[in-house]
Amino acid sequence: MSRSPGRKQENNKISRELFVLTYGALVAQLCKDYEKDEDVNTCLDRMGYGIGIRLIDDFLARSGVKKCRSYSETADMIAQVAFKMYLGVTPSVSCSSAAGNEFSLILDKNPLVDFVEELPAERASLCYCNLLCGVIRGALEMVHLAAEVTFLQDRLKGDAVTEIGITFLRKPEDRKHKRN
Amino acid sequence: MSRSPGRKQENNKISRELFVLTYGALVAQLCKDYEKDEDVNTCLDRMGYGIGIRLIDDFLARSGVKKCRSYSETADMIAQVAFKMYLGVTPSVSCSSAAGNEFSLILDKNPLVDFVEELPAERASLCYCNLLCGVIRGALEMVHLAAEVTFLQDRLKGDAVTEIGITFLRKPEDRKHKRN
Repeated sequence: MSRSPGRKQENNKISRELFVLTYGALVAQLCKDYEKDEDVNTCLDRMGYGIGIRLIDDFLARSGVKKCRSYSETADMIAQVAFKMYLGVTPSVSCSSAAGNEFSLILDKNPLVDFVEELPAERASLCYCNLLCGVIRGALEMVHLAAEVTFLQDRLKGDAVTEIGITFLRKPEDRKHKRN
Repeated sequence: MSRSPGRKQENNKISRELFVLTYGALVAQLCKDYEKDEDVNTCLDRMGYGIGIRLIDDFLARSGVKKCRSYSETADMIAQVAFKMYLGVTPSVSCSSAAGNEFSLILDKNPLVDFVEELPAERASLCYCNLLCGVIRGALEMVHLAAEVTFLQDRLKGDAVTEIGITFLRKPEDRKHKRN
């Protein structure tokens, strides 16, 4: 069924605390389910992917954004429109490769870890927010952009900031085009 | 650590879609973990309880509400302030017992099921939103109100509305007081 276009914007907003605590319950459950941090990380990424491929429709409908003309524009869109819309924060963006296909989203504050002090010692390899990587990867795939998305730094692990790396994977035709 | 009192209200809001889809991933994971619907329901309620006992501080701090003087006032507070604050909806409230300790919160629209069409046939006993019951139960317990909280009707199961029943459990001293 189609969604009501007349839905009021303000009804679309909820308080972050309930989300953050619910997300915490999800991670805790996965930590019960899987002994290895890597398996939890994979599971969070896979769940996020499933969310991203559904969330993209909502994003395109509500943001009204047009097709991006470059990887750089896409990275800015993720940071300035998508993060703002869904998490209420705006990461800064930097391009980290001469080839122009690697970007970092840098979060001074990660809203998903509001209630988390630090990771337990036995969960040192856990990427607590790995769901976000999957969401970005899934959403990008639905607009025909293949990408690798991973955490490069994480304040929960003692880093100064939280940094999400996005590497856009060039399509074969891109490379062919370049050679010609 | 205490939380910053100067935090801006608008930063506290996130888009509901991400929450709804993340909640869906949580329920799907529990359905993988537990074969019986009853076990999923219990787990969701337990998780919700853990969330409720933490969320109450946030609620009291942000709502600025004072102590309620009756069960009726408490039920109204849950519907009109807490649901509005955390889920962006306001259920209607009705008292369903002469003793004045049983209430129904009636939701014409349940924001948690936005992306759910219907429950699969093999999950007919699943209380999809049972986390909410746990949240309410946990939060009430932290203000010294014992309560049973369950779904009485559920649109996902074909009912006309979604109805959450709250039964405040009278304390022994209440009963003693009444007898005197």
